Amino acid sequence: VISVPWDIISAEKGGFKHFMLKEIFEQPRTVGDTIKGYISRDYILPFKLREFRRIILLACGTSYHAGLVGSYWISKYLQVPVEVMYASEFRYADIPVDDRDLVIAISQSGETADTRYSALSAKERGATVISLVNVMGSALDRESDYTLYTHAGPEIGVAATKTFTSQLAVLYSLSVSQLPNRDEYMEKLSAVPNMMEEVLGNAENVKKVALKYTNKKNMLYLGRYLSYPVALEGALKLKEISYIHAEGYPAGEMKHGPIALIDENMPVVVVAPKDRVYEKTLSNIEEVLTRKGIVISVGFAGDERLKSMSKDFIGIPSVDEDLSPFLTVIPLQLFAYYIADHLGLDVDQPRNLAKTVTVE
Amino acid sequence: VISVPWDIISAEKGGFKHFMLKEIFEQPRTVGDTIKGYISRDYILPFKLREFRRIILLACGTSYHAGLVGSYWISKYLQVPVEVMYASEFRYADIPVDDRDLVIAISQSGETADTRYSALSAKERGATVISLVNVMGSALDRESDYTLYTHAGPEIGVAATKTFTSQLAVLYSLSVSQLPNRDEYMEKLSAVPNMMEEVLGNAENVKKVALKYTNKKNMLYLGRYLSYPVALEGALKLKEISYIHAEGYPAGEMKHGPIALIDENMPVVVVAPKDRVYEKTLSNIEEVLTRKGIVISVGFAGDERLKSMSKDFIGIPSVDEDLSPFLTVIPLQLFAYYIADHLGLDVDQPRNLAKTVTVE
Repeated sequence: VISVPWDIISAEKGGFKHFMLKEIFEQPRTVGDTIKGYISRDYILPFKLREFRRIILLACGTSYHAGLVGSYWISKYLQVPVEVMYASEFRYADIPVDDRDLVIAISQSGETADTRYSALSAKERGATVISLVNVMGSALDRESDYTLYTHAGPEIGVAATKTFTSQLAVLYSLSVSQLPNRDEYMEKLSAVPNMMEEVLGNAENVKKVALKYTNKKNMLYLGRYLSYPVALEGALKLKEISYIHAEGYPAGEMKHGPIALIDENMPVVVVAPKDRVYEKTLSNIEEVLTRKGIVISVGFAGDERLKSMSKDFIGIPSVDEDLSPFLTVIPLQLFAYYIADHLGLDVDQPRNLAKTVTVE
Repeated sequence: VISVPWDIISAEKGGFKHFMLKEIFEQPRTVGDTIKGYISRDYILPFKLREFRRIILLACGTSYHAGLVGSYWISKYLQVPVEVMYASEFRYADIPVDDRDLVIAISQSGETADTRYSALSAKERGATVISLVNVMGSALDRESDYTLYTHAGPEIGVAATKTFTSQLAVLYSLSVSQLPNRDEYMEKLSAVPNMMEEVLGNAENVKKVALKYTNKKNMLYLGRYLSYPVALEGALKLKEISYIHAEGYPAGEMKHGPIALIDENMPVVVVAPKDRVYEKTLSNIEEVLTRKGIVISVGFAGDERLKSMSKDFIGIPSVDEDLSPFLTVIPLQLFAYYIADHLGLDVDQPRNLAKTVTVE
């Protein structure tokens, strides 16, 4: 163990109280850097993504949530069957895999045991394996047929933040990479970092909201379509660093069980950008309100309708529905951060958790 | 509204305090009846399941969990790519579906709006649609190309129990239906009802365990492989009728976040039959114990190793790993029931929930 003097660590935090907060604020740059790597055509893959029988995304934790977001994009833009699986489940189930399949294995460190061994097993059976990692030279990088890198820089906080949005940038770029109008999509994507900056400009407001909920023991996070994985990710952040039992759920499933939990002690965080499922999500919010639930929502700034239904409302800039996860996740990262910090918890090193899980 | 005299309702409960308890105890018979319907070859489908590009399972709530279990069987026995999707998510995502796909839409009532409309949309796009319903003549029954019935009889309790295990019986029968050694598998399945009876014979023990945890506000349910959906289902039962915030998770994912939640106030229910992932699950239990977690386990009777790691242990008969969900789910149903009943809650009509969800 090499001990590092406190002032060096502090300097590395760039004035932020924690690495996690620094990393949240780095996202416009890290997503920008990642996009830059994919806007050129250097990384062209020597096969047609559309021609695979199916694309299987394998990951754990936050990377799994990025994979879920990516699966919606792949379905939409490539029209190829997609499966997203927890690597730990893929590994022991009898999933048919052969050379007609493309596997995308996602892991920040490239060392996650479950993800590595799942990818290796798929490769042995003939699948083409692309890894999506943040660490060059990592095991997954070496073991896969092709590697797509996130250019997020080292992530020190145990709770992943900037690598999540960089993974999204890669998955979006990949989804549109072989479309004739790819450049249009990439142009849209290139506008995202500035919008992320805007969202971060609102951090003080998120903090004010967060500080109202520091005494809660349970929360539900809901979203539909692309906001469903964002809800899962928001809940995971809160779990990881604040030890509050937050659970993410597809909003449309709420009536099939979780709604029974709703009362004034269970705040409900709803991710509701104005997208194709906006009206449906608002119906779900109404159900929550009927049960006297407290709604904290993330939606487009100026959305008075959503605001009027919410106890607390966090606005983000209007954005093309496909790109909303880049923006909606930021307030949820900040929300978890400010709660955990207020509770005096070790945000960068939460109890029981390791940054890289190299055991099963 | 027709009001029914109390004594008639009571008679219908067959001496049980609640419909839910009666329905839990009916399962050996309802699973037996369902198997009987599939052991004959009357329901032979006029196509080869193996020849579809993929099989998509669509469902909500408990039926979704049955679908998840089924997906492992389909993968194993048919070696066809499978996707399981929440019907509410399938409906608004751009999932590529055409005449190469088989859709299995699962709904007890056959009236669940999200499931119906998802299935209709798949059918319009050329997919073959099989419905799996408990109600003959229901909307899904009429709207699908083929129907497989669960012979579970009317289910009155809002929290689904006997329809879950009957759905499993159908999904298992379907998975093996076109195998050359199908009869062997069906014979194994036919032994299940007697084993379920044995599990129910242990209900008083489950009650004793349950009564120790009635004051808990949160629980985690963990399992791997086929026990993962069982863990989800166990957590859902507790949510639905006891309003305790129970969350199900694949045990292998615990280290990627949820483990941060673990302390002495968060009991962890682990489903750990001796199957292919048994050792891996026990490693996960050790991690829970390292964090001073309280483990309640369901495993094979006489499994001293598991027992020694558990604060409370519930034994079930040894069973072929594939069939374990039929047995492991019963103690979880009973556990939720006894807790809710002890709390004086309206078990058959939990707050905020409807038996059939015909809105989105």
